[in-house]
Amino acid sequence: MKDDNCIFCKLAAGEIPSNTLYEDTDFRVIMDISPAVKGHAIVLPKQHMNDLLEVETDTAAKALFVVSKVANAVKDALGCDGINILQNNGEAAGQSIFHLHFHVLPRFHEDRFTIPWKPLSYAEGEAEEIAGKIRAVMQKHKS
Amino acid sequence: MKDDNCIFCKLAAGEIPSNTLYEDTDFRVIMDISPAVKGHAIVLPKQHMNDLLEVETDTAAKALFVVSKVANAVKDALGCDGINILQNNGEAAGQSIFHLHFHVLPRFHEDRFTIPWKPLSYAEGEAEEIAGKIRAVMQKHKS
Repeated sequence: MKDDNCIFCKLAAGEIPSNTLYEDTDFRVIMDISPAVKGHAIVLPKQHMNDLLEVETDTAAKALFVVSKVANAVKDALGCDGINILQNNGEAAGQSIFHLHFHVLPRFHEDRFTIPWKPLSYAEGEAEEIAGKIRAVMQKHKS
Repeated sequence: MKDDNCIFCKLAAGEIPSNTLYEDTDFRVIMDISPAVKGHAIVLPKQHMNDLLEVETDTAAKALFVVSKVANAVKDALGCDGINILQNNGEAAGQSIFHLHFHVLPRFHEDRFTIPWKPLSYAEGEAEEIAGKIRAVMQKHKS
């Protein structure tokens, strides 16, 4: 299903030209035109879904395999030292185009892109309380 | 296959106790004890793989489905505004434990965790040159 107002639907369908790295029946992989790191690729399912929260099993099954293939190719082609996979859901998470996509980011030991990671601590019992809430939802969805 | 020296293998197998959110035959989902955001969960395959570059098709097929389920549960349980999925490969990408894992990060409009994203520009022809290298590797792997 394609959303006629979605730019990523049009890119995935080939209606807007792109620098395509890979294409199959279900996915198109393109170069990001405003890269966080040079060589930054985006994996786009052709089917419209807003984000990962809406993903269906079949798409989920294939998407990560494509992401893994692209990550391997980016690493081999660019000789980078690492790869980040980043997938944003919702404006608060930095998503700006509401069509599911995966960022494949080549990383070098001395690059300028960092993901600041300052660990927090939980107060006593706080982690268990939050975990309990998440577990309850997962169990409800299971039954 | 389990690696006896890998702490995530031991956590995934239940040999080290954890705050488990979900478990099935192939995966265990636990709370991160040093969270970037409160409610930060980690999805661990039970089978040892260093990273996404080594992922096999079967695991890839299941992993993203589990990640999606957890993301939905975290969103429902905590009422967060967004979710980041982050998966790091290699030390240069911030990976510290070399067992494939996916971070599920609840995000709030006013949280303290940000992923700085300053877009770069490509010089003329540069994007095409990089894309050509990546495409060549993808095609080589295909045949």
